[in-house]
Amino acid sequence: MNAARTTGQVRVVGTGLLGTSIGLGLRALGLDVVLANRSPAALRLAIDYGAGRAAAEGDDPAIVVVAVSPDSTADLVATELAAYPNALVTDVASVKAGILADLETRGADVARYLGSHPMAGRERGGAMSARADIFLGRPWVITPHARSTDAQVFALENLAVDLGSVPVRMSPEEHDRGVAVISHVPQVVSSLLAARLIDAADAVPALAGQGLRDTTRIAGSDPELWIQILGQNAGPVNEVLRSFRDDLDAVIAALRDPDAPGAPSSIASTLTRGNTGVARIPGKHGRDQRFTLLVVKVADRPGELARLLTEIGEEDVNMEDLRLEHSPGAQLGFAEIAVLPEKAHTLAAALVARGWSLAEDPRMSGAAR
Amino acid sequence: MNAARTTGQVRVVGTGLLGTSIGLGLRALGLDVVLANRSPAALRLAIDYGAGRAAAEGDDPAIVVVAVSPDSTADLVATELAAYPNALVTDVASVKAGILADLETRGADVARYLGSHPMAGRERGGAMSARADIFLGRPWVITPHARSTDAQVFALENLAVDLGSVPVRMSPEEHDRGVAVISHVPQVVSSLLAARLIDAADAVPALAGQGLRDTTRIAGSDPELWIQILGQNAGPVNEVLRSFRDDLDAVIAALRDPDAPGAPSSIASTLTRGNTGVARIPGKHGRDQRFTLLVVKVADRPGELARLLTEIGEEDVNMEDLRLEHSPGAQLGFAEIAVLPEKAHTLAAALVARGWSLAEDPRMSGAAR
Repeated sequence: MNAARTTGQVRVVGTGLLGTSIGLGLRALGLDVVLANRSPAALRLAIDYGAGRAAAEGDDPAIVVVAVSPDSTADLVATELAAYPNALVTDVASVKAGILADLETRGADVARYLGSHPMAGRERGGAMSARADIFLGRPWVITPHARSTDAQVFALENLAVDLGSVPVRMSPEEHDRGVAVISHVPQVVSSLLAARLIDAADAVPALAGQGLRDTTRIAGSDPELWIQILGQNAGPVNEVLRSFRDDLDAVIAALRDPDAPGAPSSIASTLTRGNTGVARIPGKHGRDQRFTLLVVKVADRPGELARLLTEIGEEDVNMEDLRLEHSPGAQLGFAEIAVLPEKAHTLAAALVARGWSLAEDPRMSGAAR
Repeated sequence: MNAARTTGQVRVVGTGLLGTSIGLGLRALGLDVVLANRSPAALRLAIDYGAGRAAAEGDDPAIVVVAVSPDSTADLVATELAAYPNALVTDVASVKAGILADLETRGADVARYLGSHPMAGRERGGAMSARADIFLGRPWVITPHARSTDAQVFALENLAVDLGSVPVRMSPEEHDRGVAVISHVPQVVSSLLAARLIDAADAVPALAGQGLRDTTRIAGSDPELWIQILGQNAGPVNEVLRSFRDDLDAVIAALRDPDAPGAPSSIASTLTRGNTGVARIPGKHGRDQRFTLLVVKVADRPGELARLLTEIGEEDVNMEDLRLEHSPGAQLGFAEIAVLPEKAHTLAAALVARGWSLAEDPRMSGAAR
């Protein structure tokens, strides 16, 4: 049994990364997927990738997914609501309340519009980056409003589950406040932080460690997309930015005279509140305590890592995660291997017996780096 | 030939992560390393790890490395200068100008003090996390002052090179301004950003993607260490924080009415300046354009990744970097393999011919995620 929960035809408007990925995922389940794109060449490409077929006379979609840029979304949702009076129309834009308000202003049939936001993506967009599994295990927020029905919510939840996502219900306003905190403000802050490098002395950027790389990675994001997102979620983003600024002002004041009474505790509070905040983020990357990390030295030549992994396989241990680290120019790398804690000691002993060199005592590991 | 450039005895004061790692690296080169620590138990542990021997009557170090917490550093440097009148004394603290000023105030023999800062570390400290190769390929900043001699600078450069580091010369002030930008301000900003999560609704942190994880990872750092660092580098850190705040104020003003004249271009400038800044960071992690990324689907069972890497080895291609990604609970992962661009097409074709499924068109790749 591999049948889709979703029934009926699905029409996907916009064949960028998300639209094409949705099409690929639904086609893999055997659903009839109709694709639309204002660019005939882009449409042909997505069809060629197997994400669906072109529209035809008599199409009658049960669900329309509008997957276009944020500031074209309301426009196209309104068009689709009018064109397919039997369809439930959703979108995938990363800001929700403004689109609903826009549709209401236009007098669109919002009773058939139910917004959603799959929290999936990649830095590079376009149909060519699409893959059926970008939604796997990722949240898919569905944002019911006053006129939404249970049946509509179930229909979108089924679509999300069909694509491997975890559906999450929130009001449009809750969603927008949430993404301000977890996505939009981090983007602004990362961009502002990276901009400090512009005027740094030439020797300075080369001193960068993983901390700077991590905190500024998303500063490389596409400005055009983010101008739209920030503009559409300006209220919630600004509220969070203002609280950030208030706390920043306190740090600046404390650092003016760091030994003055109250200054050390103010700086300490900033740092411990950061600890508290980051501890709320669930999941495996970076600070996952469910796994033990073994760090194995691997010579930088073809076949060495393969040999290591083959031997780990021979020990019948499954790696939960793996990261290869090597310094520029070094003839040596480190394979950081995450395994279940109960496997760590046996595996470490077995690897040492096989002649591998472990860079770290497994008792100490867990969240190295 | 594997002889050390460093000659003479090296005394390491403080056997935490850095001190013990220095000892391990120098012992591996056959040097006589004397260890000191105010805690006898910690000293015994570092000796037990093989990082050096205990002090003995008649020790006459050529170089003393003080590797203690930032706010004990000046104190211990002064003590060591007095105890070993023939030695060049250095330290590894992450702030430099204040220590020199402090020594001058104390009337210490600063002509024999030459500060340094190896840009290496791990999230977890302590002798148990030490390894000889944490300095490999990392910059080691050496900060000559008015009374430093070439011979002293060469001696520390030799020590750094012996440990696999890349020596970099800067004045103490240049260093402190540099680390404010690349390390201390990112720490403050990451902590302030993570603190936004404290008051978020319960469902919100689970929506986090890689962007939030990356930008807040260092918010998990040890507050006690960072209070010292920020306090000692308060001036340069505050200067950068104030420029950050000025730009933040501009964003907040623009988002108050994002469609007003001037607002979109102000937001755009924030984002493009972030692009410009992050592009100054060299190196391979995240956004290295020197390599092409191939994304290969790998079933989540023992041996699959090993088979993939064996077959890549058979194609005689060296991986420059590798990252395994898999979603919680998924039966499928993605191996992101960085290779030289000229190898990418041949390898992609060979892997497909061997039955592997590539998740992305290599023409489009480069900096996925």
